[in-house]
Amino acid sequence: MRTLIIGAAGMIGRKLAARLPKDDLILHDVVPFDGASVVSDLSAPGEAEKLIARRPELIFHLAAVVSGEAEADFDKGYRVNLDGTRELFEAIRKANYKPRVVFTSSIAVFGAPFPEAIGDEFLNAPLTSYGTQKAIGELLLSDYSRRGFFDGIGLRLPTICVRPGKPNKAASGFFSGIIREPLAGQEAVLPVPETVRHWFASPRAAIGFLLHAAKLDTEKLGARRNLSMPGVSATVGEQIEALRKVAGEKTAGLIRREPDATIMRIVEGWPRNFDTRRALALGFRADAAFEDIIRIHIEDEVQKSSAPQPGRG
Amino acid sequence: MRTLIIGAAGMIGRKLAARLPKDDLILHDVVPFDGASVVSDLSAPGEAEKLIARRPELIFHLAAVVSGEAEADFDKGYRVNLDGTRELFEAIRKANYKPRVVFTSSIAVFGAPFPEAIGDEFLNAPLTSYGTQKAIGELLLSDYSRRGFFDGIGLRLPTICVRPGKPNKAASGFFSGIIREPLAGQEAVLPVPETVRHWFASPRAAIGFLLHAAKLDTEKLGARRNLSMPGVSATVGEQIEALRKVAGEKTAGLIRREPDATIMRIVEGWPRNFDTRRALALGFRADAAFEDIIRIHIEDEVQKSSAPQPGRG
Repeated sequence: MRTLIIGAAGMIGRKLAARLPKDDLILHDVVPFDGASVVSDLSAPGEAEKLIARRPELIFHLAAVVSGEAEADFDKGYRVNLDGTRELFEAIRKANYKPRVVFTSSIAVFGAPFPEAIGDEFLNAPLTSYGTQKAIGELLLSDYSRRGFFDGIGLRLPTICVRPGKPNKAASGFFSGIIREPLAGQEAVLPVPETVRHWFASPRAAIGFLLHAAKLDTEKLGARRNLSMPGVSATVGEQIEALRKVAGEKTAGLIRREPDATIMRIVEGWPRNFDTRRALALGFRADAAFEDIIRIHIEDEVQKSSAPQPGRG
Repeated sequence: MRTLIIGAAGMIGRKLAARLPKDDLILHDVVPFDGASVVSDLSAPGEAEKLIARRPELIFHLAAVVSGEAEADFDKGYRVNLDGTRELFEAIRKANYKPRVVFTSSIAVFGAPFPEAIGDEFLNAPLTSYGTQKAIGELLLSDYSRRGFFDGIGLRLPTICVRPGKPNKAASGFFSGIIREPLAGQEAVLPVPETVRHWFASPRAAIGFLLHAAKLDTEKLGARRNLSMPGVSATVGEQIEALRKVAGEKTAGLIRREPDATIMRIVEGWPRNFDTRRALALGFRADAAFEDIIRIHIEDEVQKSSAPQPGRG
């Protein structure tokens, strides 16, 4: 099946591409990357049409300007995240075939105040431009699917943890940092209290969601094409306790508390817990516990990137 | 206060204009009409900027391609209802002042299945392109307000009843027709069973919502700028009973039952009842009962448009 990944240079895009047959795979991003088939700006006139010209039957639309950048650069966020998505959907409509479209949305479509757990019928009231753009993408996806222009499904991914790579300045960065850095023998800064609760999925679980969405019977979705994905709800304290169990006291001791009021204020507006019964009934599967999220990081990132590994104990 | 009404040629626009001081009122529509200040297509390049050039401090954005037309003409619906709204919001942002913007949304942002009464935290899952476009307008309104580009408030109007004028082909037309036509001594067709329940406001109540929104302290809204307006939930049977009470058995006898499976299927997807506690707490007031909706129609339309009237009995 001809498959197109838009946003293939990103962490999720690369991991997804590695799981798909290479023979008819089109990899797209706006930035050049190793293995790229097409490099272009999706929101520029005519580019979406070119991308769809080979009529891929399966399209993963993962591309987005991330939260912090969409907040800092209003025009760029709307151009890429809204116009780019709409250009893609329009190009598919005009090509007049009906591919499966898997769209990555985000829990940023939700904004406080929240119930104890966010259910499948809770309103989208985003508190960022990024969340607004994703919520609009969801609405377009549902309408284009309802009209029969394509067969879409939108997945609201939990915060991906442990995100591999270098620390970054995203407000959410510490959720991964407090696991990743200590496992690498480095100190990590924790800017919020241990009582802060958040919603997580491993990169491996996220790829599982995307692959499951690609082959799901969308008749079962009805008109509501967007789903909050299952995840693990954990407090920072529970994250640290899991790290202690998996990697020992010394590793967990590399976390330094350094409260940051600005980050705390941002994080307070974020979802803490979900009731994802629709996604679970449709067969989407989360990590079992935060300890597993740490073990997956060790297996997929720490062991693979190091010199010859000892077997797991 | 300089006030702009966009969509001023429509029924609500005309009634609203009649309630506002004439001296600094800009009336806009895409169709020429008596009293128009500007006639232009809001979605055409540069037109929104021209409309905002005089920097109206209060803007009512009522313009929309209606539900049936937006469903029949996909491109036109998105161009007018989404692009037109976005052009307006962008023009305001670029003019760099902070007017009050009152946007009319619709209960069409909701789609079945519904709870017994739709609360303030129920998801927007529209089942029409019109509802999708309104839901996107709501998201943009919230984000532009959050960013401080304007001070917006969106009102999800109930179905306006009794809509004055001629019968039309809208699927919802019968809700007004079964009151309006009998009161004019004419037969009306009822295409659905009397058990069908729906959500109503009189034109007078709708104008009241708009005027209240124009002067509301928006600090009280927080980040959630869109509100379902209060209304009267009534079954068709209750509508007919109210007509009987207000205008007598002979008038109510002018309703002819003629079931229409297509209309029934459309109406089944529509909201029946709401719990609008946020709007009520903010001082928005609905009609007290369906009988009052009929009396308002008689006072505002039947008596005003007829020859010299006897006083109300």
